[in-house]
Amino acid sequence: MSKPDTSPASASNGGEHKVSRASVGRFSLYLRHLERLQREGLQTISSGQLGDALGITDAQVRKDLAYLGSLGQPGIGYQARELVDALRAYLGIDRQWATVVVGIGNLARALLRYRGFERQGFRFAALFDTDPAKIGERVDGLEIRGLDAMARIIKETGAELGVIAVPADAAQEVANALVAAGIRGVLNFAPTVLRLPSTVRLVAVDLAVQLEQLAFLVHLGQDKPIGP
Amino acid sequence: MSKPDTSPASASNGGEHKVSRASVGRFSLYLRHLERLQREGLQTISSGQLGDALGITDAQVRKDLAYLGSLGQPGIGYQARELVDALRAYLGIDRQWATVVVGIGNLARALLRYRGFERQGFRFAALFDTDPAKIGERVDGLEIRGLDAMARIIKETGAELGVIAVPADAAQEVANALVAAGIRGVLNFAPTVLRLPSTVRLVAVDLAVQLEQLAFLVHLGQDKPIGP
Repeated sequence: MSKPDTSPASASNGGEHKVSRASVGRFSLYLRHLERLQREGLQTISSGQLGDALGITDAQVRKDLAYLGSLGQPGIGYQARELVDALRAYLGIDRQWATVVVGIGNLARALLRYRGFERQGFRFAALFDTDPAKIGERVDGLEIRGLDAMARIIKETGAELGVIAVPADAAQEVANALVAAGIRGVLNFAPTVLRLPSTVRLVAVDLAVQLEQLAFLVHLGQDKPIGP
Repeated sequence: MSKPDTSPASASNGGEHKVSRASVGRFSLYLRHLERLQREGLQTISSGQLGDALGITDAQVRKDLAYLGSLGQPGIGYQARELVDALRAYLGIDRQWATVVVGIGNLARALLRYRGFERQGFRFAALFDTDPAKIGERVDGLEIRGLDAMARIIKETGAELGVIAVPADAAQEVANALVAAGIRGVLNFAPTVLRLPSTVRLVAVDLAVQLEQLAFLVHLGQDKPIGP
């Protein structure tokens, strides 16, 4: 599928053709909010309404959504369905992404039970752990396998994304195995910096960092969130 | 404790006195890396070494660390201990933050067992849930309490931060209760947008958004991470 040409649409963005990570984060939030409104029967929405719901300005909403092409109409707003389709295509989630999870502790179990993933096109295809006591156990219909089966299973399932939920000292080894098995993107929850080849994408979620950022905001005592 | 005056230090930052959220995120990563190096006996480190470890340029490292004041010395680098102390003071984690957790499912249990929090000054002071079957259960030495006890316990423990790990449809009610009880900052894992008074800080971690961002990066097929 082709990505929208952002050149004309991003003219309001000061000529920057590169979408910021903050915008990408907001695309997901727009999508989530729009999908909820659609379920409630809404068909059009204005940038002001979207901004109100997400706590940002309507100017920022229009700037973000301009990356998707010329979708909104002045005085009418955006067609919710058109916007949802454009967001899903832009984010690359208008198709399924087979995903494997390595390290089946409490965090992985929380992820597996979080229904939002499947709704957004992520399908858990396989689970792995190094603990012999866990191998063979079934979690939400999937059997936990040893790392020795990883290369074969990732190939068989066509999995492209891997979630690392192992302790920090095991994370690089697991990442290497995922890369060797052909995984294209890694979501890392282990509190360590991973080294990956430049062809493999990485998103890191360090839960302590999130709490530190919160403490910092409280410490700073700002009235508005820092950003972007 | 006083925060360093960033005016002179941020001169290299194009006159912007506001630290970006991306920089704050990196402060936590610098801190984590430095603490590990300190445990290995390292006493000084250059911006290039820090950048290499985190996969960013040494110029970005120097720009970030300039927010902390004049710490590094040309040709010598940064004193690891001085930098750690400055980072902890700047982030507001040179003291303990009593933290409560609401919604004691798999995610909360994963958080409670993650040792990184205590090392960074976060102390879990109380746990809450609405499920009568869970109330009274002990997790890692803490008893799960009902929401009716929240106001009293938050006051008694002096807790300032609250982690919300309940389903989306219960999150706003829990947030309201935390705010009414005097919590100053909320870390929200529920996949919904919370409305909080402007005096209460909010950091939201939507796990599906993280996976969507990863899919987007793979979909985009860029050689470098988007940012900041």
